[in-house]
Amino acid sequence: MTGPYDTTTLLHALFLIAIVAEAMTAALVAGRREMDWVGVVLLGCITALGGGSMRDVLLGNTPLTWVQHPYYLLLTGGAALFTIAVARYMHKLRNIFLLLDAIGLVVFTVIGCNVAMSLDMPFIVVIASGMITGCAGGVLRDLLCNTIPLLFRAELYATVSIVTGMLYVGGETLGLNHDIMMGVAMAIGLTLRLLAIRFSWGMPKFIYRGNMD
Amino acid sequence: MTGPYDTTTLLHALFLIAIVAEAMTAALVAGRREMDWVGVVLLGCITALGGGSMRDVLLGNTPLTWVQHPYYLLLTGGAALFTIAVARYMHKLRNIFLLLDAIGLVVFTVIGCNVAMSLDMPFIVVIASGMITGCAGGVLRDLLCNTIPLLFRAELYATVSIVTGMLYVGGETLGLNHDIMMGVAMAIGLTLRLLAIRFSWGMPKFIYRGNMD
Amino acid sequence: MTGPYDTTTLLHALFLIAIVAEAMTAALVAGRREMDWVGVVLLGCITALGGGSMRDVLLGNTPLTWVQHPYYLLLTGGAALFTIAVARYMHKLRNIFLLLDAIGLVVFTVIGCNVAMSLDMPFIVVIASGMITGCAGGVLRDLLCNTIPLLFRAELYATVSIVTGMLYVGGETLGLNHDIMMGVAMAIGLTLRLLAIRFSWGMPKFIYRGNMD
Repeated sequence: MTGPYDTTTLLHALFLIAIVAEAMTAALVAGRREMDWVGVVLLGCITALGGGSMRDVLLGNTPLTWVQHPYYLLLTGGAALFTIAVARYMHKLRNIFLLLDAIGLVVFTVIGCNVAMSLDMPFIVVIASGMITGCAGGVLRDLLCNTIPLLFRAELYATVSIVTGMLYVGGETLGLNHDIMMGVAMAIGLTLRLLAIRFSWGMPKFIYRGNMD
Repeated sequence: MTGPYDTTTLLHALFLIAIVAEAMTAALVAGRREMDWVGVVLLGCITALGGGSMRDVLLGNTPLTWVQHPYYLLLTGGAALFTIAVARYMHKLRNIFLLLDAIGLVVFTVIGCNVAMSLDMPFIVVIASGMITGCAGGVLRDLLCNTIPLLFRAELYATVSIVTGMLYVGGETLGLNHDIMMGVAMAIGLTLRLLAIRFSWGMPKFIYRGNMD
Repeated sequence: MTGPYDTTTLLHALFLIAIVAEAMTAALVAGRREMDWVGVVLLGCITALGGGSMRDVLLGNTPLTWVQHPYYLLLTGGAALFTIAVARYMHKLRNIFLLLDAIGLVVFTVIGCNVAMSLDMPFIVVIASGMITGCAGGVLRDLLCNTIPLLFRAELYATVSIVTGMLYVGGETLGLNHDIMMGVAMAIGLTLRLLAIRFSWGMPKFIYRGNMD
């Protein structure tokens, strides 16, 4: 074990990379809806920081992250603006952004679990906190773009978050080494997500044609 | 008066039945949008527990219900999953689900009023709290399904919630017997809702064709 | 300086006028979606009070404004209902409502900055608080009407809010006279907004046709 400081530093560095990557991919989504520059910046900030904000509002964990560290707003908003300038080159980096997004998912999940564990929440709430942190930003992005959230329709996104959270928190509960379990959980989650992208894995769909609702 | 314990127990039992029914009908809505299994579970949980969560976030009443009782997440998510298996038989139970949904509306309303009254909120906020608890879950469901909320377009849903809340809280304010008023308010609200379904009652629509907004 | 009381009174009077104007224009938007009367009232309340509520929820600043002053719900809901009766005459007042909406934007912005400053928030969060207060109500209105928020697509709305907030809080930070800076910031913001409407100014759009997101 290399000490909590080192893990925390690494996790924080990954967090910063992840929010920048999320803001940049959200900016491309904004560009496909022909939003103006303000919309691009706002959608970038909301997508990158919305999952953590949603978690903190639901858990009553104030002040929110970006209230404590306002430069996150500049970082994500700036990354979204920067995307407008470099958008034409970004398709060449597509695979890197898919990787960064997958890293973001497991990093956000672990951070969300940590927040809930530090508040002594029960197991299920800890897993839910991880999933909300990992996935709610994308749901807000899709809502603001007026589409049914991708999370509800496709991909193993939420599933990866739940698996990562359960491995991490399960290991914690069993008293396994914290740093190793965090690394293992994130590695497995990341692998699962990348395999899901590569082989287009998805959960089965529920198709209902009845007229009752 | 049979004592607060008995009322509370009955109300809680009705609450559990109502969140299961809400999760199951939300699952059918998800099926009509061809969501995947994760989307079905998430939409079930959010629809069933979203109204109470919205109320508690707006009133600053933490921890939220499902944080205190995490098994609500398993119950509603499980009910949504179960719906996938039994969907083909559910149209035969259509009337039962409409009844359960109507019971849910008045039960959620009364619970929402109780929460606000226990926080010493003023009359209008108590009524609003009941309505948010009764109706906001369905609004979130419709937002996530990318449709204008049914609540804004049709049916006496919100109206039933307001009438139920005003009867219940009005009786409380006038010092009438608590249990009797709760029963009377819920019975009248339920009757109004069922009559509205039966005879397709709705509020008048406001149709504006001007070009100003 | 005429004393904080006078400024506060004037700001509060403008606030009341602004929430009424916001509720009335939201009611017209509801009418164009053929919502029923309940939807009109709800959309009026949510649009007029949603920005401040969003701000207070994100900053953990409870109780919310309308919980402390429940008559705001009656005022905005009543204004929305009243709009149904007078809608046919409102196009003649189009310019007045555009002016009132612009006044509302700068008033909400200044109030949002004040709330965050009274909580000792850092500069960026104060500006964000002003912008959320000024703009989030309209975003909620557009979400509930199932359209991509206008804020993200057009007009200098958010920009005006940010400029107003930066002038106001910047002057405050530099120790300039509070009342004068507030007046100057609001006047400049208002002028910018009215010029933007008159000459159809907008931020440049970001148009991205790539297939990556």
